[in-house]
Amino acid sequence: MRPRPILTLLTDFGTQDPFVGIMKGVLLGLCPEAALVDLCHEVRPFDILGGSFLLQSAVGCFPAGTIHLAVVDPGVGGARRPILAEIGGQLFVAPDNGLLSYPFASGSRWVVRHLAAKEYWRHPVSTSFHGRDIFAPVAGHLAAGVPPERFGPIVRDPVRLDLPGAVEVSAGVLRGRVIWIDRFGNCVTSIARADVAALASGSGGPIHIVLGERRPGVLVSCFAEAGAGGHGGIIGSAGYVELFSHQGNFAREWGVSSGDPVGLAIDG
Amino acid sequence: MRPRPILTLLTDFGTQDPFVGIMKGVLLGLCPEAALVDLCHEVRPFDILGGSFLLQSAVGCFPAGTIHLAVVDPGVGGARRPILAEIGGQLFVAPDNGLLSYPFASGSRWVVRHLAAKEYWRHPVSTSFHGRDIFAPVAGHLAAGVPPERFGPIVRDPVRLDLPGAVEVSAGVLRGRVIWIDRFGNCVTSIARADVAALASGSGGPIHIVLGERRPGVLVSCFAEAGAGGHGGIIGSAGYVELFSHQGNFAREWGVSSGDPVGLAIDG
Amino acid sequence: MRPRPILTLLTDFGTQDPFVGIMKGVLLGLCPEAALVDLCHEVRPFDILGGSFLLQSAVGCFPAGTIHLAVVDPGVGGARRPILAEIGGQLFVAPDNGLLSYPFASGSRWVVRHLAAKEYWRHPVSTSFHGRDIFAPVAGHLAAGVPPERFGPIVRDPVRLDLPGAVEVSAGVLRGRVIWIDRFGNCVTSIARADVAALASGSGGPIHIVLGERRPGVLVSCFAEAGAGGHGGIIGSAGYVELFSHQGNFAREWGVSSGDPVGLAIDG
Repeated sequence: MRPRPILTLLTDFGTQDPFVGIMKGVLLGLCPEAALVDLCHEVRPFDILGGSFLLQSAVGCFPAGTIHLAVVDPGVGGARRPILAEIGGQLFVAPDNGLLSYPFASGSRWVVRHLAAKEYWRHPVSTSFHGRDIFAPVAGHLAAGVPPERFGPIVRDPVRLDLPGAVEVSAGVLRGRVIWIDRFGNCVTSIARADVAALASGSGGPIHIVLGERRPGVLVSCFAEAGAGGHGGIIGSAGYVELFSHQGNFAREWGVSSGDPVGLAIDG
Repeated sequence: MRPRPILTLLTDFGTQDPFVGIMKGVLLGLCPEAALVDLCHEVRPFDILGGSFLLQSAVGCFPAGTIHLAVVDPGVGGARRPILAEIGGQLFVAPDNGLLSYPFASGSRWVVRHLAAKEYWRHPVSTSFHGRDIFAPVAGHLAAGVPPERFGPIVRDPVRLDLPGAVEVSAGVLRGRVIWIDRFGNCVTSIARADVAALASGSGGPIHIVLGERRPGVLVSCFAEAGAGGHGGIIGSAGYVELFSHQGNFAREWGVSSGDPVGLAIDG
Repeated sequence: MRPRPILTLLTDFGTQDPFVGIMKGVLLGLCPEAALVDLCHEVRPFDILGGSFLLQSAVGCFPAGTIHLAVVDPGVGGARRPILAEIGGQLFVAPDNGLLSYPFASGSRWVVRHLAAKEYWRHPVSTSFHGRDIFAPVAGHLAAGVPPERFGPIVRDPVRLDLPGAVEVSAGVLRGRVIWIDRFGNCVTSIARADVAALASGSGGPIHIVLGERRPGVLVSCFAEAGAGGHGGIIGSAGYVELFSHQGNFAREWGVSSGDPVGLAIDG
């Protein structure tokens, strides 16, 4: 017996409207046995890069063969292509607008196809809701067993956005950006575990967080280490440096916004 | 083998409380194999007509036999009847307060029953949560295979609310109302595709949006046609005229609220 | 055939981040056939007692054998134990920080185990997301059929917080607290049905709600009894006195916050 297909959904549709439920109706109509999982529908409207980061933070926890349906699609109805990507054993159905930039950058092998086979779409196709009319039907057919090569020809140049990384601006000083602020006010930065390891090699001293002229703490190994009311940084669960306030809200307390520069410094 | 039952939920319960999860516990206790889909739980508290519109915007995307559990129920515990409606091959379990007005108006044949058979309820029945004690148990038994006629006698006069439509107020001028504002600030109006077709027949000119004294654009066929930062109207994915601001928020930018009058005009 | 496992999730993770979806990926990777139900993810960050109350308000609606995964975990990464509790035929996977206080107080028999068997965790274990790395994997293995005794040794002293109850402060006067305010502004108090029964025995008169110097109505049996725009108290669906405003919002109209004292009084 085929294992039960797992299908995730990530959008900027929010939950105040029935858009997500409508896509699930299309999916279950094509593959009633699928397990549907909401990854996140609160991506900021049209925030392609933020959505891409959240998507990538989740895929590692899903089994091989999972189908990820991702729709953050400001160009809906225009010229951007709908695509199907196989990346590291998982499948992604999305607009070709950079929404898969983080998964593409993960180091896994990938194959991308242009969703050109209109027999797998829902007709008539609207100009404003391809989630319902193109992406969900394709994902539903995939879940029902239609092989990827049936959906369209290979594409070698999918859109890949520049990702904010981390740069060593001088000896012992690393600079990155805030890329996501979570519900708890933790500020996830673009500084990855490997960046920190390179910075810290050869040093035994503390690594300071730098926010403009301020230094709100050091890198610790768990929230509790900062003490009640304390703050600092940790390597968060997604593998990036996160600024936190223990049982508080770092972003609010320190006035941090998405996109703000953040530094790490080892005192010389 | 019976196909896997699909059950949707639409309420004004929000998601800050466990009310929806509680109904799902009742449903799965009666029909563990059901696929449960949240349509929307953010209907404005007690907004029966808004909930009805959202429900109808979704049902066309679900397969025949789907069971829709809809609870927007300001009269809970009072005299309003609980009902089961079969409309166009789908099933609806809801209070008889007008929540099914849009599905009833869809043109499909319907049969309605009064949920009088108390052996399908959960006892003791509270006076404030019939979603848990009447509607979910009935929907669960339905999903488990109990035939509709077992739940109670036929009702020929279910509550049907007046629906805001579109009226031709003078030659080439159509007037409707905003009935829903979605997460993106798009303003869905009561002017349907067929109303526009009637207005436009014989004319080749642009159709202007009219908001009081203002004319924020014309009817186009997709968002992108309005250009970046542009605005106008399209026939939206639900089949009604929607006012939009491309990658913006029309409702906020133009100060539009639910219920506001909206016109379409062909210049004579 | 084994019945389909039912797994609920209750957290303070909100839905703006993919944390809940990530836990579901882990769960479905271990038990693809499980039915996953979101109870509530909007527990106030770190509000252990509030989460415990909401959890207990739901468990009675789920069938025996249901697994409840509950994560409100300000001490993540510190010394608090992860536990598995069997309470009244249902299973709970949670941090040992008081989150199960209400279920423990329900009067059912319970057995608690320390989740010490690391072969059921996801490695490497982060210091900030045990929902993904400990609680979800354990719940997934449980759902897949691993028996409870395999997860670790019995614990006899799980953390149990003091629950706000109801006290008779003088003859005919009962005092409790607001423990939850729901989406509709209903104020759920710590005064249970049995407390009211004891207060009311021997009296036929109305029971007044007391809010400081104010008396916003009496205890009635359903919302509608208060009339349109009316307000008062009912025994709510969770079995506790709730203050309500009919089709209004009691908390907003009367300025009530969580934790506020509330009284009931029979006039002598």
